[in-house]
Order: sequence, then C-alpha cells, then structure tokens
Amino acid sequence: MPMDMNAFKLELQERKERIDKSLLKYLVKEDTHPAVIHQAMHYAVFNGGKRLRPMLVLEGAAIAAGNPEIAMKTACGLELIHCYSLVHDDLPAMDDDDFRRGKPTCHRVFGEANAILTGDALLTAAFELITGNADEPGVQPQQVVMVIREIAAAAGSQGMIGGQIMDLAAENESIDLATLQTLHSLKTGALFVTALRAGALLGNIDAGGLQALTSYAQHFGLAFQITDDLLDIKGDQILLGKPVGSDAKNHKSTYPSLLGMEQAEILARRSVEQCLASLEGFGSEADFLRQLANFTLERQS
Amino acid sequence: MPMDMNAFKLELQERKERIDKSLLKYLVKEDTHPAVIHQAMHYAVFNGGKRLRPMLVLEGAAIAAGNPEIAMKTACGLELIHCYSLVHDDLPAMDDDDFRRGKPTCHRVFGEANAILTGDALLTAAFELITGNADEPGVQPQQVVMVIREIAAAAGSQGMIGGQIMDLAAENESIDLATLQTLHSLKTGALFVTALRAGALLGNIDAGGLQALTSYAQHFGLAFQITDDLLDIKGDQILLGKPVGSDAKNHKSTYPSLLGMEQAEILARRSVEQCLASLEGFGSEADFLRQLANFTLERQS
Repeated sequence: MPMDMNAFKLELQERKERIDKSLLKYLVKEDTHPAVIHQAMHYAVFNGGKRLRPMLVLEGAAIAAGNPEIAMKTACGLELIHCYSLVHDDLPAMDDDDFRRGKPTCHRVFGEANAILTGDALLTAAFELITGNADEPGVQPQQVVMVIREIAAAAGSQGMIGGQIMDLAAENESIDLATLQTLHSLKTGALFVTALRAGALLGNIDAGGLQALTSYAQHFGLAFQITDDLLDIKGDQILLGKPVGSDAKNHKSTYPSLLGMEQAEILARRSVEQCLASLEGFGSEADFLRQLANFTLERQS
Repeated sequence: MPMDMNAFKLELQERKERIDKSLLKYLVKEDTHPAVIHQAMHYAVFNGGKRLRPMLVLEGAAIAAGNPEIAMKTACGLELIHCYSLVHDDLPAMDDDDFRRGKPTCHRVFGEANAILTGDALLTAAFELITGNADEPGVQPQQVVMVIREIAAAAGSQGMIGGQIMDLAAENESIDLATLQTLHSLKTGALFVTALRAGALLGNIDAGGLQALTSYAQHFGLAFQITDDLLDIKGDQILLGKPVGSDAKNHKSTYPSLLGMEQAEILARRSVEQCLASLEGFGSEADFLRQLANFTLERQS
C-alpha cells in the first residue's frame, strides 16, 4: 500500500479538529464557578496535543462498530487522563518543566496548588465523561463499566502511574533495556493499549480481533517511544516546540542511549512491522492504523 | 428514642473495622511492583480515619436494599477518594501540613513526587474498584454507571475540588457566611451527599426516599463541619490527634469566627434537627442515621 504522506497528515489534522471540538463541548465552560479551575482545565487540555489516544479509541470503535462517533465520550475522557498526567508530570516536585509545546506549563500560569487540583479535576472529569458513553445508542451499560475498569487499571498504580514512579526512580541512574521497556510499556504503552481496546470494546469484537488490536497498540507504543527518543536527539526544536537534547542533559536512559542510534532505528522499524503483522486478519477497515504505524517513523514532532 | 452513647460508639467501631478489612482486601498489596506507590497508598488509607463516608454508603444500601454489603466496593471506593483528597490537601503547595492524626503526612514520609502520584493512584483505584460493584448479585450495570457519574461529579471541579479551590482562595481573607456555606457544601458536603445517595442508588429507592436521604446528608455535612470548627477551638489535642487553634492561627473563616461560639452551636443543633426531620418518612431502618446525627453533637474527635 503506497502511502501519500501529505494526504495522511491532512487526515490526522481533520481527526484532531473533530476531537478538539468535542473536548470543547464536553468540558465545563471556563466561566463556571470557581472560574480559575475551569480556566486551568481548558488551558491544560488545549495545549496543541496530537490527540493520538482519542484517535485510537475512535478507530477501535470504527473497526468494531463501523462508527467511530459512538466512542467519542470515551475518546475525550482518555485524552483528559493524558492531559492530567502531563500537568502533574510538569510540577516542580516531578519533572519541574517550565514549558510544554512552547507554552508555559499549567503551574507556571496558575500556580502550583491550582495545577495539582487541575490534574485531579481532569482525572475526575474523565470518568464522569466516560459514564456518559452509556447514553449512546447501541452501547450497553455493561460495556461502559468494562471500559472504565480497563482504563482505570491502565492509568493506575500498575499502569501509567507505576511507569511514572519507575521513571522518577530511574533519574540519573542507568537502567537496563528490560527495565526501560517495562517502564515505557507502563508509562505510555498502557494508555495506548487501553485506548484502542476501549473503542473496540464499545462495539462488537471477538477475542481474536481484540488480541490483534492489543498487539498492534503494544508495538505502536514502543515505536512511538523510540521515535520520541530519536527526535530528542536529531529533531527540530521549532517543530517539536521544546528544546532537543534534554534526555542527554538529564542523563536519562533512552533507547538510543542504550542501543545506539542505528539499533534504535532498527528496533523502531521492526516494531512498525509488528504493528502491520498484528493487523493481518483485518481488511481495509484497518488501513488507518496501518498508515498511522508507518507515519510514526516519518513524524517530525 | 433515648440513645446509649457507649453502645453507639461500639457500633461505629465495629462498622469501621468491617470497612478497614474490606479496604485491606481491595487495595493492591504493598509489595506489588512498584512497591513504593503501593506502600504509600496503604499508608495514606490506613490513617486512623473514622470511615464516615463509606458508612453512609453502606447505610444507604441497607435502607434501599436491606443489605449494606452489596455496596461495599462503592463504599471503599468513596473512602479512597476521601483519602486521596487528604494526601493532596496536605502537600506543601496546598495546606503544607506535616502531621495528620498524629502521624507524619504522606509527603513527609514518601516525598512530594510520590505523594502527588499516591493521590492520583488512589483516585484512579477508586473508580476501578467501584466498577467491581457491577459483579454484585442484584446490582445492574446501569446502576453502577449512574453511581460513578454522581460520585465523579461530587468529587470534581464543581464539587469537592471546587470547594478546595474556594478554600485556598479564602486563605487569610474574611468571607461572608453565604460563601462559607457554599465552600463547605462543596468541599465536604458533596461527598457526604453522594455517599448516602450512592448506596441508595445501588438498591431500590423511590424519588421521595432519595430526596429525603439527600436532605439528611446535606444537613449532616453542615452539622459535621460546624462541630469540626468547634472542636478546633475547644477540642482535646490528644483525642483529635492534631493541634487545636489552627483555624484561628491561619486566620481562617469558620462558623464560630463568623457567628460566635453560641450561635454556631445553635446552628449545629438545628442542622441535626433537620437531619431528623428529613427522615420522618422512614421507620426503624433509619435509626442508625438518626443516632449518627445526634452523635455528631457529642463527638470529641
């Protein structure tokens, strides 16, 4: 399947805008009392993010239900969880980052106490929003309960938060490849996996199909992380919206630092091949996922 | 109804122990990887708390379903939300408290980054645990979805978190009685209300019964807050496990500071009378709630 990169970028942009519109609709309005928390929530959510996780939710629903829109509330809920994690990761006690995508971080604008509460509020709002998915025609409450359970597990102490704990513990320490892989499969992988699964679980999918999508998302998460590490070395600061070289400066173990650039690139390509292999049982309905995997190798931000 | 205070204290103790046992069963074991987060979660949950909120959940289910046990997972989930809010409230950027109930606060023991993540993990675990309530015989997934939605709203930016935002904004400022009432109805009232309602919603209850329990919980929250303020003035430091006089030292507006001791005590008593009036449509099945309301006026910690 030859791939038109510009057409795919337009497709990504269009999908991102559809998700942004829904996020704006679902978030409590900025002037709602107490205004500062709702302003800060909007600031944290409309941060120039790529909306990859909600895209995966919608794509899971498109494959399993023929209609991505039935999963929009869950998609936006998952993005709120991603956004809360960024707000808390940036805090002075954590990564102490002043900028994200070229804009001052939430605590730099709203203060530390408000930023902590903003993260808390986004996480709480995520689960409230996802319950609303039970109102969607064709979606059963039992499916929503299952999806909330999976998402909470993926975002929790044995998922994303567990990965962040490992990441903090690994600061200024050299870790081995197996530990790095566990760390990333928790910190970023778990949310990618639960995204694609959640969308599929809101439709109808058999165990084999679900397993295939799970495998895709695992390899996708790995490819995404490696290319992230590579961009931190050879990326364009303007396109990235953040300084390059920060991993090396922070003595952070990364795929390139443990494997070398060349081997890291090979591992990224192999992960994308495994993404494609996972989808062998699907037809053209999985073309977007195939293109997305390939795009990961080409992305510049 | 004459009330035997000692017998009621024993009843409270027995119920607390039953809830503690369930919390221990539902929390991820302390040695689970990454151990530090699970140790910190246990530390934050087993903090000598009175377990009032889960008691209200169980009592709602006892009244509406004749069996408190069907709501145990929701009860424990709500307590995890309460515990997370304490961990985050104590942080240096928030109230900056070194001790809670005579023990060093979570961030004093585990560090600030881990304490932030511990709060996040407890909040996330709460929702995962509550989804498990759908496995209970006689509970429908639709009820669980409704309960999660209510709890998330009560804990969110227009509930508990909104109240904490108002509380931070009111520091060292004098506010009027109406603002103080809004602040507390959000910061502590919303969780009490959602507790009793959540238990009732997992059983069968008509609109009138639900409204009566809602009204009870609102007045109970107010009575509880006023007696909290009074204990901070005239309480026993040993029984409370924290220094008294902290509100005055922090120039915090409280019911006694705005109304005077005597009027605050009258308002607390009137709130308890309104608790009892709310329950007029119930028979002996609401006796525990009646006793609990009366007990609020007598409590010493």
